[in-house]
Amino acid sequence: MLNKLLLATTSEGKVREIKRLFEGSGIEILIADQSLQVEEKGLSFLENAYLKAKAYYEVYGIPTFADDSGLVIPALDGYPGIYSSRFYSLSWGGQEPVETTRDMANIKKVLRLMEGVEDRSAYFFACVLVYAGDWGLWAEGRCDGSITYEPRGEGGFGYDPIFQPEGYTKTMAELRPEEKDKISHRGKALRRLLELLKMLK
Amino acid sequence: MLNKLLLATTSEGKVREIKRLFEGSGIEILIADQSLQVEEKGLSFLENAYLKAKAYYEVYGIPTFADDSGLVIPALDGYPGIYSSRFYSLSWGGQEPVETTRDMANIKKVLRLMEGVEDRSAYFFACVLVYAGDWGLWAEGRCDGSITYEPRGEGGFGYDPIFQPEGYTKTMAELRPEEKDKISHRGKALRRLLELLKMLK
Repeated sequence: MLNKLLLATTSEGKVREIKRLFEGSGIEILIADQSLQVEEKGLSFLENAYLKAKAYYEVYGIPTFADDSGLVIPALDGYPGIYSSRFYSLSWGGQEPVETTRDMANIKKVLRLMEGVEDRSAYFFACVLVYAGDWGLWAEGRCDGSITYEPRGEGGFGYDPIFQPEGYTKTMAELRPEEKDKISHRGKALRRLLELLKMLK
Repeated sequence: MLNKLLLATTSEGKVREIKRLFEGSGIEILIADQSLQVEEKGLSFLENAYLKAKAYYEVYGIPTFADDSGLVIPALDGYPGIYSSRFYSLSWGGQEPVETTRDMANIKKVLRLMEGVEDRSAYFFACVLVYAGDWGLWAEGRCDGSITYEPRGEGGFGYDPIFQPEGYTKTMAELRPEEKDKISHRGKALRRLLELLKMLK
């Protein structure tokens, strides 16, 4: 039913990770030749994934895969949450200048807000979704852990360098890609989605 | 996989219609013993259906079916849209007093705003959704037609008395239930959803 899926992202880190997770699934992953600017104005990960997938579907007419994910920190009232990718620019918590990369500005802001905070628990959440015109499906995944006191590791992307998964002494950015996929929010969500897609074949 | 679904609504009109549409599907429909007040604060039909299903799922722990639907009128900038059920109370277009039922107050407001408007085209849109904890699926359906000059018919619910489906001289409220189901937004969406649910069995 769905043997080809267009990715609703051109972000390098995500493309690499998603392609890796789809390997061996029998589903071909297509990359869009243009990056669409989609305003992530939804109030949930599901809504934002839906808005992205729909925008690409409307241009390309191909069943589209989108992902929306973020870091949820209870001590920060759930922020960065759905604002994870542009947290540095939110007035909530004070804007953070981009000195090197946006990822690093986001990380600096989180570490600044978490200074002196004892409850460092946090979780990554991902919603992965396929939109196929007049129907679609989604799966969610969660990875529990805690916020470190400084960034460690070069792998992954986003908040990976300051997130230490439960039961690990390494940060997400210090794990090998296969290790990360096994426990990550996106890995869990995607494996569930693939099970469903296989049944719909 | 899903042979029982809880309905995330206790609205009589919807329960009756949904039960009828699921007849013979092999899926048992359960009615909640309490009506949860869910704020429909989403920005799309999908989001609102998701919020409703999730709220019931969190109380009952049973895969839940939710529906969000509405009447979209291009000449009114897409209103009542996602606000269809409480359009009468919106300040947009001026509040309408509830003299008899909320359905009738909604209808009166639409007819008032459509006075003298030539483009009477409109469509009903439905998003039906199943939320099963960490995954879910949805289907959408649309029924094109136009807004009449006065309410006609006693069947259906909501805006049915002022909606005349394309190719029909009767309003949705004048059609027999089986006729309505054949062409309605909810009927179309639900048949698509049932196809998907059967594949996931």
